[in-house]
Amino acid sequence: MNDSVYLKERCPVWMEGAAVCLLDQRALPHKTVILRLARYEETVGAIRQMAVRGAVAIGMTGGYAMAQAALTAPENRFWEVVERARAAIGSARPTAKNLTYAVERVHAALKKAPDVPAARRLALLEAQALYRDDARMTRRIAEVGLPLLPKKKAVLTHCNAGWLACPNWGTALAPIYLAHRKGKSVFVYATETRPRGQGAKLTTWELAQEGVSHALLADTAVGHTMAQGEIGLVIVGADRIAANGDTANKIGTYGLAVLARAHRIPFYVAAPSPTFDAECPSGREIPMEERSGEEVLQVSGLNTKGEETSVRVATAGVTTRNPAFDVTPARLIAGFVTERGIVRPTKAAIRRFLNQARRRSTTPPA
Amino acid sequence: MNDSVYLKERCPVWMEGAAVCLLDQRALPHKTVILRLARYEETVGAIRQMAVRGAVAIGMTGGYAMAQAALTAPENRFWEVVERARAAIGSARPTAKNLTYAVERVHAALKKAPDVPAARRLALLEAQALYRDDARMTRRIAEVGLPLLPKKKAVLTHCNAGWLACPNWGTALAPIYLAHRKGKSVFVYATETRPRGQGAKLTTWELAQEGVSHALLADTAVGHTMAQGEIGLVIVGADRIAANGDTANKIGTYGLAVLARAHRIPFYVAAPSPTFDAECPSGREIPMEERSGEEVLQVSGLNTKGEETSVRVATAGVTTRNPAFDVTPARLIAGFVTERGIVRPTKAAIRRFLNQARRRSTTPPA
Repeated sequence: MNDSVYLKERCPVWMEGAAVCLLDQRALPHKTVILRLARYEETVGAIRQMAVRGAVAIGMTGGYAMAQAALTAPENRFWEVVERARAAIGSARPTAKNLTYAVERVHAALKKAPDVPAARRLALLEAQALYRDDARMTRRIAEVGLPLLPKKKAVLTHCNAGWLACPNWGTALAPIYLAHRKGKSVFVYATETRPRGQGAKLTTWELAQEGVSHALLADTAVGHTMAQGEIGLVIVGADRIAANGDTANKIGTYGLAVLARAHRIPFYVAAPSPTFDAECPSGREIPMEERSGEEVLQVSGLNTKGEETSVRVATAGVTTRNPAFDVTPARLIAGFVTERGIVRPTKAAIRRFLNQARRRSTTPPA
Repeated sequence: MNDSVYLKERCPVWMEGAAVCLLDQRALPHKTVILRLARYEETVGAIRQMAVRGAVAIGMTGGYAMAQAALTAPENRFWEVVERARAAIGSARPTAKNLTYAVERVHAALKKAPDVPAARRLALLEAQALYRDDARMTRRIAEVGLPLLPKKKAVLTHCNAGWLACPNWGTALAPIYLAHRKGKSVFVYATETRPRGQGAKLTTWELAQEGVSHALLADTAVGHTMAQGEIGLVIVGADRIAANGDTANKIGTYGLAVLARAHRIPFYVAAPSPTFDAECPSGREIPMEERSGEEVLQVSGLNTKGEETSVRVATAGVTTRNPAFDVTPARLIAGFVTERGIVRPTKAAIRRFLNQARRRSTTPPA
């Protein structure tokens, strides 16, 4: 596979032998950097340092990292290394549910093996199956979400929930891409999504690649744009959805949901079933990552010479708070756009949905 | 007067002879640049290019620009130049009510003069009286707002409504400064206020100068911080307040007001009487400035070498929308903190308040 695999496959992470390859999202949109990670510890580092982001892509990377640990562990210490890798990979980022899901799925697969060579093979097969499952799910999310798109008004999205975050179609962007490919007119407002600017950097890049009409909004401009009657739908991704429908997602999502409610604009969360966490009763129990204040103080982009550079926006010594995620309570969510239809944000509907999912996943991967 | 006049007087604009001097707020917090503007046209340019910002400071600058036009107009074309200046200065920025107020006040004063030398003198006196009035009003706003400060929770403010925007005490920051000087404990969350980052650049700078405890928040982090129960008061400034209490202020203010309401946090607007526009019936009639999208695409700050530089946060060709202000409807506002007490956000209360103001202003300036 060559470097442009990410564009052909619309997938930000893949394996080459025992190496995990990542399209480094920190360099986008200005540069294309592929990381080739030889050891699972390096892959953990890349996850932690946010070279990959988006719950599903983080999960896929975690699955590949488990396969990588199995492929590279010395035979005499195989099970010990695998268990160490399982713990290290699973805790590389605290908020994303998909990460532990993927790690546990690959781990469960390799545990069934009678010997080490079989365990290596099963680990790789399971990680690859995860990718195929994810890709299929995004196509289904596109179809399920398509009828929600407003006929005349714009769609607002936050952060990046496209194929960089979730292979092939993305989650929140999936219905938008499908509409565009079907020749339907669609206009997207992308929020900047400070502090890391994933909307400005990644969503606009993805939308431009596909030729979807869009405009970038400062996060502060959302209320006004809604008040002007321009927005007909808000659709975002999710990092983790609790059993009662409370949803953790990129910081700022909650504020958008409150604004959407005030303007009677439907607010949907697009996410495949592994993003739901049946064991987490509500948003209060979702661990929230607080990241370094430097993310708020430093903004990176291209200088006039075309070099990627970082500038400090406040004076030295200014303190900051930098919560990376927030929780949107279920009552503000119109529904979840999943691979098996719209799920209402109630405990009962989510339980039914997850029980179906569990029954299906007892089928061994193809 | 020397360059540090702005710190001693806590005032960002003053006159030296017929020159208008401005602390260039675009260079803050990293550098101190004083603009010396010899002609009123340059002063108009500086207002337009946002070297000065904040409704009251813009108004003061407009008043000085009128005085400057009177001081520098040739005697034989005096009235013609003065009328041209009046139109040019009054329309330099569309949203700020104080600008036309100040221009008209200086214009009315000089029109009373029997001859050109008297007109020059009266114009300068009136512009200086404007400054004294503004300064006195900010001290009163500090006193009126003081009892609103929460005992334990933090205060959230948006954009910059300190002395850079309004001489001596500021508007929204005035009660905070007074509390701090009285030795009361107060903690301020300043929003970054994208796209121009006045909160990150100016408010944190002002608060640090005064030694007030504070932290910077990305605009996206407000909802989460409110949901955590950390914020007990939101207080902001205003660019223009309509007769019914609808308030135009920096983009993002409206979103904060919606969030504050959702969390039952009192939302106050601090503004002196000239910010009220009795002739503007409601927010719908306030002209809204839409500024260049480059403000969203470019972020400026200090690079690692300590040079002020600008970086582009999205790829070339990304389109943006950049509304500079929004309107917060009166129903979301708990009250206006004015120089003559708290004014309720109703048409009747505002009318009473403005009638009082008008009666007082028939007293000639001291």
